[in-house]
Amino acid sequence: MAQRVGKQTLQLEQVYIGSFAAAVGKKEKQGPLGRYFDIAFDDELFGQDSFEKAESFLQRSAVETALKKANIAPQQVQYLFAGDLLNQCIGSTFGLREFGIPFLGMYGACSTMALTLGTAGVFIDGGGAKQVVAATSSHFCSAERQFRFPLEYGGQRPQSAQWTVTGSGAAVVCSAPSPVRLAAVTFGKMQDLNVTDANNMGAAMAPAAADTIAAFLQDTHTSPKDYDLILTGDLGSVGSALLVQLLKIEGVSIAEQHKDCGVMIFNKNQDVHAGGSGCGCSASVLCGYILPKMAKKELKNLLFCATGALMSPTSSMQGESILGVAHLVHLTVE
Amino acid sequence: MAQRVGKQTLQLEQVYIGSFAAAVGKKEKQGPLGRYFDIAFDDELFGQDSFEKAESFLQRSAVETALKKANIAPQQVQYLFAGDLLNQCIGSTFGLREFGIPFLGMYGACSTMALTLGTAGVFIDGGGAKQVVAATSSHFCSAERQFRFPLEYGGQRPQSAQWTVTGSGAAVVCSAPSPVRLAAVTFGKMQDLNVTDANNMGAAMAPAAADTIAAFLQDTHTSPKDYDLILTGDLGSVGSALLVQLLKIEGVSIAEQHKDCGVMIFNKNQDVHAGGSGCGCSASVLCGYILPKMAKKELKNLLFCATGALMSPTSSMQGESILGVAHLVHLTVE
Repeated sequence: MAQRVGKQTLQLEQVYIGSFAAAVGKKEKQGPLGRYFDIAFDDELFGQDSFEKAESFLQRSAVETALKKANIAPQQVQYLFAGDLLNQCIGSTFGLREFGIPFLGMYGACSTMALTLGTAGVFIDGGGAKQVVAATSSHFCSAERQFRFPLEYGGQRPQSAQWTVTGSGAAVVCSAPSPVRLAAVTFGKMQDLNVTDANNMGAAMAPAAADTIAAFLQDTHTSPKDYDLILTGDLGSVGSALLVQLLKIEGVSIAEQHKDCGVMIFNKNQDVHAGGSGCGCSASVLCGYILPKMAKKELKNLLFCATGALMSPTSSMQGESILGVAHLVHLTVE
Repeated sequence: MAQRVGKQTLQLEQVYIGSFAAAVGKKEKQGPLGRYFDIAFDDELFGQDSFEKAESFLQRSAVETALKKANIAPQQVQYLFAGDLLNQCIGSTFGLREFGIPFLGMYGACSTMALTLGTAGVFIDGGGAKQVVAATSSHFCSAERQFRFPLEYGGQRPQSAQWTVTGSGAAVVCSAPSPVRLAAVTFGKMQDLNVTDANNMGAAMAPAAADTIAAFLQDTHTSPKDYDLILTGDLGSVGSALLVQLLKIEGVSIAEQHKDCGVMIFNKNQDVHAGGSGCGCSASVLCGYILPKMAKKELKNLLFCATGALMSPTSSMQGESILGVAHLVHLTVE
């Protein structure tokens, strides 16, 4: 049974990450983590005839690979938890329709990997399932043309802008013991600091990350020093600096333990300005780079806090601010 | 602990619906269920300056009312489970941001009310929470201009088309005993029958409803006769006829017990063709009309199966079919 600790955190008893896989596009392959991803394509279409179908293909590939690596048939999976940035989450629905697994669609913008992992964990812990899959994806080309401008437009991007990662991550969450344990989850509250600049998502999401990380530390009576790594989703360089600063005001120093997937996935010379973003950013870094390191015991105790910016082009055009949300999972190796 | 029965169903032990409320617009107020809704407005804007903001307002009103009816403060609610049809679920995010409750965004198209109720149930049952809220909404004007045509266009609608309900429903799901119990949940699989007509959503969703209802009956070794009512979300008249027929082929006769929220919410003379649709259709009928009847013991044992069409204008323009999904919750009064 999940044990509620403090205000917002759930400690889980017997929940493990049984398998994981990441699939990415060309630019991500060329980045510093390129060689770690299970699948890395040399183009952006992967043989599909639209960027949206390419994103679905990417998510299907990640899920397929995660299942294959652990020799699991789709019929042995009780639920799929997935979502993405595309309108009506079509990246996930069309990507995963063929598996024939009961499907729980989720929407957490770029926080989706932590949202689906955490929800999957609660289901496993409560006896609702023995083996499920959590997944998400994003694609630079499908996101860019949906949220910003036609790809052909070629407008200049400010330095605070981030680059949507073409990538997907999938993890099998299960009750059968495995090296990596999903020990706790803190689902976050929406934060509204009246940020309205869609080219500065990091600033909109940093307060949410700060709130969720502070809540977890307080709930569990632990401090950043207790963790090998505090990994945020995709704050990028601007949002990361802001997060460290916001927590410092609260008397919490995470500078030594903190890294951000958005900063890690690209090289500075890849022209991505403040770094990577998108659901697939933290998902591919977690499932392609971090979880394998945990399985090898090179990392033993970490917090994964994925951050999302809740908005749409319509809400922004109507003058609404960009809400931030961040969900956190605590992963350990025993 | 959730007890897995059969292939797809979870029986829950101590999960109740502690409160519920529904808020609707003008056309729904004029319909046959008009007098049952907690809040029914006389226009479509409710004092807001856009239809999207009006939808957010509607969802906030439903949640506020559900909490107020049971004298619950937002701080006493551990999680909000919500989603809607708008791109990036802005109906829910902007509607619910002020509650300061950890937020789990979900996307199930028009199946959202059953998806959020079922997920909430699993969280409560597994000890992850004591009191949560499940909610969703839709708005005719925000949906029409996002999915179909500008409101001013005035094109003719075929007889199989449905009318998006302007409505919201919210339910408090809790572990404290209450007259209505959430006894079981069956999360559904995506069904793809290659339906591509966006003016015939009922046909796209009926196979999903048939699959989920059949799975539940098989898993629990029960038959339609065991229930007072088998209530589908928003198949409308075309999809309802198809559902009854599809199940008949499988040897399951639900004609006597079956009703559909999309058929119930409007009068035939309200010019809605095949009936109501949208997340708010089944949500408002369940929370405004059905749950109060259960609390008064006029209905004692029912299956609520909300159906969703998974697609976007982009996926349809790219030649994709419309996927159906249906989630079911079993509600009882003891």
